[in-house]
Amino acid sequence: MPAHPVLIAGHWTPSEGTKTFQAVNPTTREPLADLYPVSPWKEIERAIIAASEAARTMRGWPGDRFARFLERFADRIEAKSDAFVEMAHLETALPKSPRLKEGELPRTTNQLRQAAAAAREGSWAQATIDTKANIRSMFGPIGPVAVFGPNNFPFAFNSAAGGDFAAAIAAGNPVIAKGHSSHPGTTKMFAEEALQAARETEMPDALVQLIYRTGHEDGAKLVSHRLMGATGYTGGRHAGLVIKEAADKAGKPVYLELSSINPVFILPGAVEEKSDAIAGEFTSSCLMGAGQFCTNPGLVVLLAGPKTEAFLETVAKKFGEAPVGTMLGEGVQKSFGEAISALTKAGAKVLAGGSAGGGKGFCFQNTLLRVEGAKFLADAEALQTEAFGNGSLVVVAASIEQMVEIAETLEGNLTGTFYSSTTGADDAGYDRIAPAVRQRVGRLLNDKMPTGVAVSPAMNHGGPFPATGHPVFTAVGIPASIHRFSQLHCYDAVRPGRLPPALRNHNPGGMWRLIDGRWTQEDVKA
Amino acid sequence: MPAHPVLIAGHWTPSEGTKTFQAVNPTTREPLADLYPVSPWKEIERAIIAASEAARTMRGWPGDRFARFLERFADRIEAKSDAFVEMAHLETALPKSPRLKEGELPRTTNQLRQAAAAAREGSWAQATIDTKANIRSMFGPIGPVAVFGPNNFPFAFNSAAGGDFAAAIAAGNPVIAKGHSSHPGTTKMFAEEALQAARETEMPDALVQLIYRTGHEDGAKLVSHRLMGATGYTGGRHAGLVIKEAADKAGKPVYLELSSINPVFILPGAVEEKSDAIAGEFTSSCLMGAGQFCTNPGLVVLLAGPKTEAFLETVAKKFGEAPVGTMLGEGVQKSFGEAISALTKAGAKVLAGGSAGGGKGFCFQNTLLRVEGAKFLADAEALQTEAFGNGSLVVVAASIEQMVEIAETLEGNLTGTFYSSTTGADDAGYDRIAPAVRQRVGRLLNDKMPTGVAVSPAMNHGGPFPATGHPVFTAVGIPASIHRFSQLHCYDAVRPGRLPPALRNHNPGGMWRLIDGRWTQEDVKA
Repeated sequence: MPAHPVLIAGHWTPSEGTKTFQAVNPTTREPLADLYPVSPWKEIERAIIAASEAARTMRGWPGDRFARFLERFADRIEAKSDAFVEMAHLETALPKSPRLKEGELPRTTNQLRQAAAAAREGSWAQATIDTKANIRSMFGPIGPVAVFGPNNFPFAFNSAAGGDFAAAIAAGNPVIAKGHSSHPGTTKMFAEEALQAARETEMPDALVQLIYRTGHEDGAKLVSHRLMGATGYTGGRHAGLVIKEAADKAGKPVYLELSSINPVFILPGAVEEKSDAIAGEFTSSCLMGAGQFCTNPGLVVLLAGPKTEAFLETVAKKFGEAPVGTMLGEGVQKSFGEAISALTKAGAKVLAGGSAGGGKGFCFQNTLLRVEGAKFLADAEALQTEAFGNGSLVVVAASIEQMVEIAETLEGNLTGTFYSSTTGADDAGYDRIAPAVRQRVGRLLNDKMPTGVAVSPAMNHGGPFPATGHPVFTAVGIPASIHRFSQLHCYDAVRPGRLPPALRNHNPGGMWRLIDGRWTQEDVKA
Repeated sequence: MPAHPVLIAGHWTPSEGTKTFQAVNPTTREPLADLYPVSPWKEIERAIIAASEAARTMRGWPGDRFARFLERFADRIEAKSDAFVEMAHLETALPKSPRLKEGELPRTTNQLRQAAAAAREGSWAQATIDTKANIRSMFGPIGPVAVFGPNNFPFAFNSAAGGDFAAAIAAGNPVIAKGHSSHPGTTKMFAEEALQAARETEMPDALVQLIYRTGHEDGAKLVSHRLMGATGYTGGRHAGLVIKEAADKAGKPVYLELSSINPVFILPGAVEEKSDAIAGEFTSSCLMGAGQFCTNPGLVVLLAGPKTEAFLETVAKKFGEAPVGTMLGEGVQKSFGEAISALTKAGAKVLAGGSAGGGKGFCFQNTLLRVEGAKFLADAEALQTEAFGNGSLVVVAASIEQMVEIAETLEGNLTGTFYSSTTGADDAGYDRIAPAVRQRVGRLLNDKMPTGVAVSPAMNHGGPFPATGHPVFTAVGIPASIHRFSQLHCYDAVRPGRLPPALRNHNPGGMWRLIDGRWTQEDVKA
């Protein structure tokens, strides 16, 4: 059987590469039949050049063009939703329902439509006009964007349909999708629909291109190529840092989501008040989808005491009783096992689970670890090892003061969560710990687990390194996520007829603009 | 004579370093008497720790606190303006009047006051509220900021008083100023006034700290230290890339302004219409301040023809007749000479100047070079060597098509400029060349030279690499420049009393916030 073709410049083309790979069914641990190619550099470079030409063609195009494509693409995906769900389930073992069918697929088409609405409406560009100096600026497209999707969201973060993809297109850029090797069939289906949607909406052929896999060096060459604009990467830390180093060296913006253990501080009054409810919420947040979420609560900090001991007993019992989910692949199971070993080697004790197995296919027992606060502080780096999967490390602190110290040693994370008493009993503790957590996370939560990531304009799915590469930006939430794939375009005394429509005096669409320090939907008074 | 002390944690402290340096009077080429220390790592680390403590102390402080400091600082600078002008003139040879006294000093205090107004008013933080999901986000302080100032603006970009400094403080951060070695006395005076202003406004002692010089390795350690938030760097490309690499590796945001040749396209109709006027504007833009501006027009592209020859004759004559300015230092003169050599070696011919000397102190003849378009395209990298000083390279293109090709080979620049006919004769050419330039510059200008950089909210003093490190951000223009020293802080279901004032329902100060997709100064309806 020949390998599946790659999508370059609007054509499904047999790869010039000689190496191939197969996806693996995580439930059976058997390779799937289809072969996918590893693209050699020449092929990647053809995609870059085609994307660059597409970017040139689209210069100055109104947002409506990109909106129509995104909407048509969303419609096409919905028309084949059953087939998408089947394929993604086969490749990832994620449950068809509700996870894929009612959860992730509608989320994905919703993101595409939100991005479309933002592109059409235009306020995302933050047009800023100084009428006195006649200087005008806005965010404009940056050029071809490479998107590296992760394993854990075959739809919502897919390199050819997910959040980075939608944001890059909404900003007016072509995308080179680098599919994740764990779900190439799903990614191919997206690229097929994207190509058809591009044709139906008269977009350039190279608006969306797809390669399935590259060598590490070629990935680095892709993101640092002089014709590329920027890169979005969601995935493991090691491969991400290779991409980051190459892009940084070339001065190309690179937006990464790398790792996060998402600390949860459960203050004593909350344990006192609703121990069982929190134990339930925590267990389901930690084990849902076999724990394979960027915002999985991987570190829980509690104050020592009998109520905490009882809480931990409850949680350990729940972990033992809960079904063990199937992981996305052999690599995930292996990394998770290695991380659990690293944590126990650094002094964590096993309260539940701790070994591979316990479910179907690639899997690992639901694992709860424990370490005392002093020990955590003595080896804080090792004890912040991310265990991506259905497990969590509980730190039992000796005092509120020690909880503050623990907070101050945290690396950058996507989220930080606090559960506290509703009576005010924990307020003094909150006021001491939360400011330290605030500086180290993108999103601070109260009284709920961090695994839900709403697609809201106020969302921040980002955070200080190593959670992401830059703490100003978010990967989820429109319009803010679009800014990542833009550059600031200033026009100084540029003649009126040469200005982009968003910066002209007349504002027929009523987009929001910052005119002389005032946000307004009005025209500039001539 | 002992070396001047460094300012650490609010105390002027003798440096622990054994190495010292002296500034040099550029006019006499003689070293000035004062000795300044090279700080060893231990001393730098003390500053980092003190800054980190100051950042912790200031967490959650209202913008008004920072505004009062910035305003008091501006007042104190103005009260000593004559002394500042004397010192800066001595160290830089920049003219006292109008450059330093009527130009750069008021610009500097104006920037401080604009930053103060932004900090107090709060709209810069772009508070974003999703009332339905109860998710709220805003830009908040990032932590201690290291500012490396350049040689060419002893006031307006000074590490202890300039644009990066003002933006970092306005965002709520302490600053560690790394002064430029060419004007340590000026920088010391700023730090003295900043310390007094900090005391008078009850800010932490370590709000502003000063070191004069570090080894390269220690500079890299400073910007990548785990307690640091971000870095602003304006200066040469080589040293900047060392700083960038270290900061990137540690995942610390670093904002750099490195180099720019600021292409100017003078289209044939403009030469036809107002050759002499443009020759005059170009000459004064290129030679002003001995050409030592980031936005100096270093590359001029013209269409071949008799009018262009006449234009070049006029410019060459003006270059020959204009007084030769004194450069900021021996290094500037040397680098400029080396760049001119590199350009001539790559095929540029000398139309005017070309040798060191011609004025007082460190100086180099006003230098105009010329190369044909085909030759430029054949060696575009070498012919884009930045010559920082009073010189420019003219490219004479054979056709509009070739001008497009030249535009497509340009590296990232701060600015790109077009002069064109007022009759529409150049419009077709503009429409072909300008889109290519647009993608490669931060600020696009029409009919005026790029050397004026207004402090406007719509300004972009930024651009694609290697002009800067990231094309989304601007170093000049408030409030946008403040975002560089912030991180995105999201609050998800955080209890109302725990929200920062900017995200609460009540908005007594009327700051602009994006509530449910609408920019408004109103309260959130409860």
